[in-house]
Amino acid sequence: MKNYSFKNDYSEGCHPRILEALVKTNLAQQNGYGYDEYSEEARALIRQKINNGNADVHFVSGGTQANLLIISSILRPHESVVSAETGHIFTNETGAIEATGHKVHGLMTDDGKLKPQHIQSVLDTHTNRPHQVKQKLVYISNSTEIGTIYTKKELQELSVFCKANNLYLFMDGARLGQALTSEINDLTLEDVANLTDIFYLGGTKNGALLGEAIIITNDKLKEEFGFHIKQKGAMLAKGRLLGIQFLELMKNDLYFDLAKHSNVQAMKIKCAFQTKGFEFLSDTYTNQIFPILSNSQIEKLSKDFDFYVWKKVDEENSAIRLITSWATSDEVVEEVVKEIQSL
Amino acid sequence: MKNYSFKNDYSEGCHPRILEALVKTNLAQQNGYGYDEYSEEARALIRQKINNGNADVHFVSGGTQANLLIISSILRPHESVVSAETGHIFTNETGAIEATGHKVHGLMTDDGKLKPQHIQSVLDTHTNRPHQVKQKLVYISNSTEIGTIYTKKELQELSVFCKANNLYLFMDGARLGQALTSEINDLTLEDVANLTDIFYLGGTKNGALLGEAIIITNDKLKEEFGFHIKQKGAMLAKGRLLGIQFLELMKNDLYFDLAKHSNVQAMKIKCAFQTKGFEFLSDTYTNQIFPILSNSQIEKLSKDFDFYVWKKVDEENSAIRLITSWATSDEVVEEVVKEIQSL
Amino acid sequence: MKNYSFKNDYSEGCHPRILEALVKTNLAQQNGYGYDEYSEEARALIRQKINNGNADVHFVSGGTQANLLIISSILRPHESVVSAETGHIFTNETGAIEATGHKVHGLMTDDGKLKPQHIQSVLDTHTNRPHQVKQKLVYISNSTEIGTIYTKKELQELSVFCKANNLYLFMDGARLGQALTSEINDLTLEDVANLTDIFYLGGTKNGALLGEAIIITNDKLKEEFGFHIKQKGAMLAKGRLLGIQFLELMKNDLYFDLAKHSNVQAMKIKCAFQTKGFEFLSDTYTNQIFPILSNSQIEKLSKDFDFYVWKKVDEENSAIRLITSWATSDEVVEEVVKEIQSL
Amino acid sequence: MKNYSFKNDYSEGCHPRILEALVKTNLAQQNGYGYDEYSEEARALIRQKINNGNADVHFVSGGTQANLLIISSILRPHESVVSAETGHIFTNETGAIEATGHKVHGLMTDDGKLKPQHIQSVLDTHTNRPHQVKQKLVYISNSTEIGTIYTKKELQELSVFCKANNLYLFMDGARLGQALTSEINDLTLEDVANLTDIFYLGGTKNGALLGEAIIITNDKLKEEFGFHIKQKGAMLAKGRLLGIQFLELMKNDLYFDLAKHSNVQAMKIKCAFQTKGFEFLSDTYTNQIFPILSNSQIEKLSKDFDFYVWKKVDEENSAIRLITSWATSDEVVEEVVKEIQSL
Repeated sequence: MKNYSFKNDYSEGCHPRILEALVKTNLAQQNGYGYDEYSEEARALIRQKINNGNADVHFVSGGTQANLLIISSILRPHESVVSAETGHIFTNETGAIEATGHKVHGLMTDDGKLKPQHIQSVLDTHTNRPHQVKQKLVYISNSTEIGTIYTKKELQELSVFCKANNLYLFMDGARLGQALTSEINDLTLEDVANLTDIFYLGGTKNGALLGEAIIITNDKLKEEFGFHIKQKGAMLAKGRLLGIQFLELMKNDLYFDLAKHSNVQAMKIKCAFQTKGFEFLSDTYTNQIFPILSNSQIEKLSKDFDFYVWKKVDEENSAIRLITSWATSDEVVEEVVKEIQSL
Repeated sequence: MKNYSFKNDYSEGCHPRILEALVKTNLAQQNGYGYDEYSEEARALIRQKINNGNADVHFVSGGTQANLLIISSILRPHESVVSAETGHIFTNETGAIEATGHKVHGLMTDDGKLKPQHIQSVLDTHTNRPHQVKQKLVYISNSTEIGTIYTKKELQELSVFCKANNLYLFMDGARLGQALTSEINDLTLEDVANLTDIFYLGGTKNGALLGEAIIITNDKLKEEFGFHIKQKGAMLAKGRLLGIQFLELMKNDLYFDLAKHSNVQAMKIKCAFQTKGFEFLSDTYTNQIFPILSNSQIEKLSKDFDFYVWKKVDEENSAIRLITSWATSDEVVEEVVKEIQSL
Repeated sequence: MKNYSFKNDYSEGCHPRILEALVKTNLAQQNGYGYDEYSEEARALIRQKINNGNADVHFVSGGTQANLLIISSILRPHESVVSAETGHIFTNETGAIEATGHKVHGLMTDDGKLKPQHIQSVLDTHTNRPHQVKQKLVYISNSTEIGTIYTKKELQELSVFCKANNLYLFMDGARLGQALTSEINDLTLEDVANLTDIFYLGGTKNGALLGEAIIITNDKLKEEFGFHIKQKGAMLAKGRLLGIQFLELMKNDLYFDLAKHSNVQAMKIKCAFQTKGFEFLSDTYTNQIFPILSNSQIEKLSKDFDFYVWKKVDEENSAIRLITSWATSDEVVEEVVKEIQSL
Repeated sequence: MKNYSFKNDYSEGCHPRILEALVKTNLAQQNGYGYDEYSEEARALIRQKINNGNADVHFVSGGTQANLLIISSILRPHESVVSAETGHIFTNETGAIEATGHKVHGLMTDDGKLKPQHIQSVLDTHTNRPHQVKQKLVYISNSTEIGTIYTKKELQELSVFCKANNLYLFMDGARLGQALTSEINDLTLEDVANLTDIFYLGGTKNGALLGEAIIITNDKLKEEFGFHIKQKGAMLAKGRLLGIQFLELMKNDLYFDLAKHSNVQAMKIKCAFQTKGFEFLSDTYTNQIFPILSNSQIEKLSKDFDFYVWKKVDEENSAIRLITSWATSDEVVEEVVKEIQSL
């Protein structure tokens, strides 16, 4: 039995306040399918936080589900979505997007972030209409699958580019809390709402049992969205389960406190590695770090801690991935820091 | 504010034992995606209850999700599924099955139950190969969408017919607990497992926050099922949420106690209507009843209670639907019975 | 070897004028994919005949192909199409429409023709949004699969109803020539173009080697249609093959002459049956007739002629289907008439 | 008006022998849907030429259609197909494969040809089951989209690799005739049939009006293939049109004579460029050549001849693509050669 697992940020249950809310509301009869009072309150709070009273908010169970239903609701049959090659939809969802009938273009990037020139390169090689698929949607993640985040300037540039090229911009925010509370972040939640057409706030990786809050700001994408939720099997009879959780997470900014906590814990561990002179696969400021260790160091560290060996660097060294969460305690961090110091 | 809603069996949260289990296990780190200890234990218990150690068990969030992923995992592109016209997949899932590429044949029945002759009639009118779609799967619900249940003899006959005609048999068990604990039932859970190729045990409508347990007994249908769960967005990162719930429901047969409770409460109300001489749209012995009331009686009853007006019978009368649940208390039943007596 | 087959209207090759045109144009180099001169000319002629210079015209190979690409180009994922139960898309295309993700509602009719009340009945039972699929398109065939045709009044009523209910109206015209040249017809091609949003003129069953001309009059349905043709594999590299054929068929109304010929031949045979007192399964005035014969009469007639036994009426009698075509000669008709007289 | 277009190999109609056969057989009544005598004879001839009496042979209209129906008939929902990034299915079919629900992996290659190491690299990065799509099919083209061809050794190695990795091997033979008659080819048609599981012989780009002959040698892929043809709208009512053409092409090896002719004409033009010292984008020995010209040379050549400017090499130079066909006459070749000599 190991001391702690840094394999992911969904190893524990949920923040205790959520359980308390579930217990407190348990026997109140409520409407199904998201029309309960808690969901309505949660929606109102989210609209307030993004300063947009007209946004549509829908709660669904998980990230792959959110991605596939959002993308398939937006695209017509001959349209495609552009993603980084590291994008979750390109490599980690068992072809879920293609299964709804749409091509995903996977583009090489340095840091997991799409820039206008990446997208332009796809547009440039798909001008032979109607023999080639038509790009209509850009998919980005913030924080990305490799822990990096978008700056305000980068997101603005993407937004301008997408509008100029008649493309929708969709942000996968499975770890948006961590992005927005990163020490180097300069984006607000309101910025994200203003600069994208649709995005979601991840609950599963930030203290909820499950749940992602899809937020639609572009009117064209709002229409009849409920049909898509139902059709893809994403509409919970007891929608209250999602509403209650997001209500708790949004109240008093618990959501951001939890995300910040996970970042802070990761940065402490990162610092320990840095102090010892370790290098990193990428320079991250969220709750994922990718230090490069020798094989024997990896073996040593894995005696007490669980984590993924992420990428072989050479015969002697590999990058590992450590993920912290809202539930990673100071004690655990101290333990692993001590271990790092002794490597 | 009304006294109680009989609109459906998912108006409350979940059985308190489930909440206790969630609280107790909350901070234990577990593997994701259904590989946690609770899910493994729940699977073992289910296998034991169906007396089949080789069955595959998968937990997913809801019924539409279970239906669409099961059916699309089984059928090849040119194959179709046969259902009663009242079947949930035919009318109540926003075309979810067709969205995965497959035709659903909807057959008229008297009581929501498919019999061999219904299926034979579809086979007889689809012999012009390859110009017509090929039937490969039969979908039934138990209890059905209108509250009726299959007898052992009926299920045996369907099973024999399906095998003889090279068709798979799939039972939607969103309310299987209620069916198996009905006073007129003669089927066991083991029978269901033996007589079908795949079925599921519904949690959402029987005391869970969410969750259906898919049980696969036919080896051909087991292969690579996990890919389909993931691709359809049905794989929860915190699969523990489903495992913990089914573990609690299976322990000491809580699942069947809750279902029986909901049936008993419905039968008390049914009895009150019968005593007063009311007729019913269909003769049900599970947790759904469909008494026929005059418009003024409906108006009177709806002052204190919520329910659906199900079907207009004539200008003066309509059938209403009352559904009870694991959470419907004796006090509520007494109240509504008193009201019925005064109609 | 039998004398003649009345099994269908695509047993022969094509009208000789088409072959002559193919020979004459054979070595002229032309643009691919429908941008050849012949296709352009054919489009111009069709636009002229429907008196609509803005209509879009596309040529594709066959009816199932036309149906699936038209319907999937129009519908969003949660939308469905309404058809008669006898409609080609409902029973005779191996689930082609569902394979593109859409439900087909199959409605019982007396004569293969949809009327507003049929469609209204579907709308009435699909009001539970978003839990039920949304109807957006009405599919009709003219002539229908059982040989009947729409009157001008009927088509006007459908058109008004569809507009009022925000539904598109699509006419499958695989045998539109036969409908418009029927002795009881009161519709013109221009009427059809005005009263529908999209329709096609069938070539395969009226003298072409293959080909259907899709005509789009509703601007909303025109947009980016070429992408759909390509994506569904329906865009011929040598689009000239389709253009040349429709050019010949449209010139001097050959198309309508051929259709009328097929009708006239069928009516002669129908008359022979009537004279002898035979009854019919349905009263048709196009190139399909469905006389009811005794089993021994069927056996006798089938010695020299091929046809389908369409539907068993009772133990002693069945309806047969005889189809005539542009190529059914007077000699053949005389022969079969003589045979009928001797039954 | 230019003298000749080298834009593609489908600018003309078809070989005159095909037209003669169409005329000769025109009025013979035949079964529909590929059950005519000519199709049966053509199938027999093809089976004989590949020395495999058990192969299934199906005729369809075009390449995109063949590709989408073959691939969707083989793959289960969670399975994907591997292709070169230059592969027709990856970039030139408007997302047709994805529209059937399947991911296409596009791999960078030097010469348009897949080698085992390319495929291995995809397998290596898709081991996280069931979170990633499962590779099941390898798609190659011969000749490739950039004119190169597979050697016998290369195809053998691919075949061995696919069998070892439980992958099916599918060859797109839209230009297989040109590949097999290339001066550097060492493969026979029989080799192709033995080393792949399924492939097709292209007619459209080798003298037919339209048509590809799909040949299935792996028994597992034969089952119920007709359903897929019908469902995808690829089954012609007058299947005779395809049968007659392949019968003519197969008789006396007209197919290979035409392909060889197109290669020979291209090689003459290639030689003219080489003699003048021009370089090429790739070294091809089939009917496509890619010489690199200066902008002014391109302008000069394009006065009399049509062709595509394929790829910009630098500010001053671009590669052009010239394609010859069965119909490219010696006179035309002499003219263009003269023009090249004067550049």
